[in-house]
Amino acid sequence: MALPPVAPYLTLFILSLSLSFSLSVPFDERGLEPNIKALQEADRVGGLPGQPPVKFRQYAGYVTIDESHGKALFYWFFEATQKPAGKPLLLWLNGGPGCSSVGFGEAQELGPFLVKKGVPELKFNDYTWNKAANLLFLESPAGVGFSYSNTSSDLEVQGDNITANDSYKFLLNWFKRFPQYKSNEFYIAGESYAGHYIPQLAQVVFDSNKKATMENYINLKGIMVGNGLMDDETDLKGMIDYAWGHAVISDRLYYTIKTNCDFAKENQTMDCQRALGQYYSLYNIIDMYSLYAPRCVSGSSTVKSITNPHKEAPKFITKIELLRRLPAGYDPCLQEYATAYFNRPDVQEALHANVTKISRPWSLCSNEVNIAWMDSQTSVLPIIKKLVDGHLRVWIFSGDTDGRVPVTSTRYTLNKLGLNTTEEWATWYSHKEVGGWTIIYEGLTFVTVRGAGHQVPTFAPKRSLQLIRHFLANERLPSVAY
Amino acid sequence: MALPPVAPYLTLFILSLSLSFSLSVPFDERGLEPNIKALQEADRVGGLPGQPPVKFRQYAGYVTIDESHGKALFYWFFEATQKPAGKPLLLWLNGGPGCSSVGFGEAQELGPFLVKKGVPELKFNDYTWNKAANLLFLESPAGVGFSYSNTSSDLEVQGDNITANDSYKFLLNWFKRFPQYKSNEFYIAGESYAGHYIPQLAQVVFDSNKKATMENYINLKGIMVGNGLMDDETDLKGMIDYAWGHAVISDRLYYTIKTNCDFAKENQTMDCQRALGQYYSLYNIIDMYSLYAPRCVSGSSTVKSITNPHKEAPKFITKIELLRRLPAGYDPCLQEYATAYFNRPDVQEALHANVTKISRPWSLCSNEVNIAWMDSQTSVLPIIKKLVDGHLRVWIFSGDTDGRVPVTSTRYTLNKLGLNTTEEWATWYSHKEVGGWTIIYEGLTFVTVRGAGHQVPTFAPKRSLQLIRHFLANERLPSVAY
Repeated sequence: MALPPVAPYLTLFILSLSLSFSLSVPFDERGLEPNIKALQEADRVGGLPGQPPVKFRQYAGYVTIDESHGKALFYWFFEATQKPAGKPLLLWLNGGPGCSSVGFGEAQELGPFLVKKGVPELKFNDYTWNKAANLLFLESPAGVGFSYSNTSSDLEVQGDNITANDSYKFLLNWFKRFPQYKSNEFYIAGESYAGHYIPQLAQVVFDSNKKATMENYINLKGIMVGNGLMDDETDLKGMIDYAWGHAVISDRLYYTIKTNCDFAKENQTMDCQRALGQYYSLYNIIDMYSLYAPRCVSGSSTVKSITNPHKEAPKFITKIELLRRLPAGYDPCLQEYATAYFNRPDVQEALHANVTKISRPWSLCSNEVNIAWMDSQTSVLPIIKKLVDGHLRVWIFSGDTDGRVPVTSTRYTLNKLGLNTTEEWATWYSHKEVGGWTIIYEGLTFVTVRGAGHQVPTFAPKRSLQLIRHFLANERLPSVAY
Repeated sequence: MALPPVAPYLTLFILSLSLSFSLSVPFDERGLEPNIKALQEADRVGGLPGQPPVKFRQYAGYVTIDESHGKALFYWFFEATQKPAGKPLLLWLNGGPGCSSVGFGEAQELGPFLVKKGVPELKFNDYTWNKAANLLFLESPAGVGFSYSNTSSDLEVQGDNITANDSYKFLLNWFKRFPQYKSNEFYIAGESYAGHYIPQLAQVVFDSNKKATMENYINLKGIMVGNGLMDDETDLKGMIDYAWGHAVISDRLYYTIKTNCDFAKENQTMDCQRALGQYYSLYNIIDMYSLYAPRCVSGSSTVKSITNPHKEAPKFITKIELLRRLPAGYDPCLQEYATAYFNRPDVQEALHANVTKISRPWSLCSNEVNIAWMDSQTSVLPIIKKLVDGHLRVWIFSGDTDGRVPVTSTRYTLNKLGLNTTEEWATWYSHKEVGGWTIIYEGLTFVTVRGAGHQVPTFAPKRSLQLIRHFLANERLPSVAY
C-alpha cells in the first residue's frame, strides 16, 4: 500500500516525536529512588558468556525471603523486547518438585536465550515470550537451582505450602526492588508440577491482596497452567488411559491397573503399586514426555547413560511419589548442555548467582528437594474454582503428545471441575495449520497444542508464543486458517 | 576388521565364482517356454519417464480375468533388487475401496519409485520393499486405476466377493505368465480397506489350494495387514475412543456418540448417524490419517481446494458407508503429483497401461467404485481365525498416529479374536529408537509402529522395511536397542 503524500516537515515531526518517546528516560529509572536504582543496577546482567546481542535489559540475583535463616530465592528477569512499560509482567514456574525454571523454562523452552549443543554459546529464541511480556523466572523453593537456605532444616522439609508462601514473600520483595512493575498487570504461568505451584501462589496473592496495604498489593490478573498436575485421581486415571489408547502399555497391564487401583483413594494396594511400577518402568525405554520424539543419543553416551536417574522405579511407591516422580523434561541432550552451562563459574558470576558458594552443583532438578516433599495437595481444583469465581483469568493448556500429564488427564480434571460451557470445542489455527482445539468454560479456557509434548514451548515454539499472546490479551485463538 | 591374508589365486577363484553366479542365465529365462518368454518380454518396462537408473527388472501390464466381459486387471511388478530367485513374492494391496496400489503403495509408500513434487521425475526409495521381496502391485477390482471392464455392469456392482474372486483369477493367470515365481513363497500385504481384501483373497487361495491341480496351486505362506479395517464394531468403537483420547473431539460429541450409537448393530439411529457425521466433518480440517503431520498447502491451492472430495459428509450415511468412506491417504501434495504422473501418455505407454483408451482419467481413488460397493463383510475375524488355524503366518501392524483405522480399533479387534498370548507386549527397536510395541498371540503377531500414520511406509520407511523383512523371515523384531 502506498502512503498518501505528506508534507516533509510533518514526516520529520512524526519521526522526532517517536524518537523522543523511545529515547526518553528508561522505564526502570523514572522516578525511582537512588537506592532502588542502585539495587537494580547491582542485579543488572551485563552479558552472558556466549550470549547473542540483544537490545532489552536483563537482571538476575537473589531475593532474601528469610533473613534469620539465610534463605534466598534466585530469579532471572528479562524486560520485554519492546515497550516494557506497557507490557504485563509474567512469572514462569517449572515443576518437579525440585526443577529449575532457569534451566528448563528459560534455557530450553520460552526464554530469550536457549542453550546450544556442545558449544558454550546461547541461541536467541525467535519465539521468546519476552516479546509478549516482561518475563520473570524463579527457582523455587530454596534448594532448587541457585536458590538456597543456610539453615539445613529448611531443605529437609519441603512442600506445597512452603513453596507458595516463600514464593509470595519473594514477589513482595522483588516488587520492592522493581517498583516500576507494580502497576503492570501480573500473571503466573508454568507447567507440570507447577499445576500445584501456580494456583497455590495465586491463592496466597489473592487472599493477601484483600488485606494488603497499597505497598503489598500485587496486580494479579490471571494464571496459565500447561500439562499441569492438578488432581491426583484424574491425573492418574488419564495417564493410564492415555498409555493404553496410545498403544504404550499392554492390554494385560491396563486391565491389571484398572482392576487393582482405585485412584480416588489415598493409598493404593500393593498389587496396584506393583502394576503402576511396571508402568513407570517404561520411562526407562521411552520418552513419555513426548511420545513421538526421537531420543537424544549423544556421541559419547549410550541410551543407558542418559537415562534420568529419577526414572528408576523404587520398590515401594506412595501415591504422592507416583505423582511427582519423573520431573525431568524433554531433550536429555539439552539437559546436559544446560547443566554444563549453568555450572560454569563465568556464567554464575555474570548472573550474580551462587555468591554464597553453595555446597552442591547447580542441577536442573534437585532429587533432595523432591524427596523432602511433605505436603502435596490431593487436588487444586477447589483453588482453581475459587480463582475462577474471583474473576481471575484462568487458562489451562495441554501439549497432546505428552504421556506424563496427558491431555486425557486434563480433560478428566476439567470435567470434574464442572463448569458450564460457554463456547463448545473448536479447532484453533496457527496460520494454515491446526494448532489444536479449544473449549471455553465459564471463567476458564482450555487449549490443546497439537503434537506438542510435556514442555510445550520446546516442541511448538511459534504456537506457544501465539498462545501466551492471546492469553495476555484475553483473546480467543483464531478459529479459521489465516 | 582386517581380513586374513589369502593366496592371490584363491581370491581370483572366489571372485570368478561369484561373477559366474551373478552372470548366469537370468532367473526369468531358465527353462521357460519361448511363448512365455515373449509374453514376459512384452510386459517388460524398459524405463519410465524421469526414472533413476536401477539394476533390477520391472514388468507391467494387463491380466485378463474375464475374456467375454473384457475385464482386465493392471499390475506392476518389480524383481527383487538382488537374487530374485531366492526371494519370496509379495503382493501389495491398497484399500478404499477404489484406491490404487500403484498410486499409493508403489508411488508414495513402499515401491522402488516415489513420485516427486512438481517435477516429472521419480525418486529412488532407499527403503523399497523389493530389497526384501519380489514385489507385485495390483489395481483391483476393475474400475480402479488402470484396471477396467468393457462390460459396464461390471463396474456398477462392486464388492468384497467380486474383488477376492477376481484377484484370485488374476493371480492364477499372472503365475501362468511368470511361472518362475510359482515355487517361491507367496505373501499378501496391504493396508486400510485391504484389511478386507487380504484375508478374503487369502481365504480363496487357501480353499482353492485344497482342490487345486499342481498348475493352480499357489504357495501362499502368510498375510500382513496394516491399519486395516477388520471388524465394523471394534473399528468404529476404537475410532471414536481414539478421537477422544487424542483430544480431537469434544466431550459432548464423545458422550453423544457413546449414548446414541451401538456399533454392534447393523443400523444406527438417526441421532447416532448425525453425531458420526459431525465426527467425519473433522476430516475437512485435519488430516486424520496422520494426526501430527503438517498439511500440505501447495503454492497455488488453498487448504480448501486440496480437501479430498470424498471427505464431504453426505446427509445420510449407512454404517457401511461410514466405514469405507475417506479412502484417501496421506500427503495431498504427493497425491496431486501421483495423479499428474500416471495420467501422462508417455508414462502410460511405458507401463503398457490404458491400451484400450479407458474413458476416464487414471485416479488415485475411484469414487465410482466406492459408491458401487454392495457387499462389505461385517467382520473378517472368522476368516483370520481360519487362516491362523490353517497355519498361515498372520501379522497385523498399526501406525499409531492414524485416526482413521487407529491402533485402539486394532487392539479391540484382536481382543475380540480371543487368541492366547504367547509372548507379552514388549518394546521393539529400530537401532537406538523404540520402533513401537509388539505382542505375539498364538499364530498371530501384532506390531505397532510408533509415530506413523495410516500409510505406515510413508511415515516410517526404515522401520517398515525392517518390519517386512522380519515378517518374511518369520523373525521377532529386535527387543533391545542395537
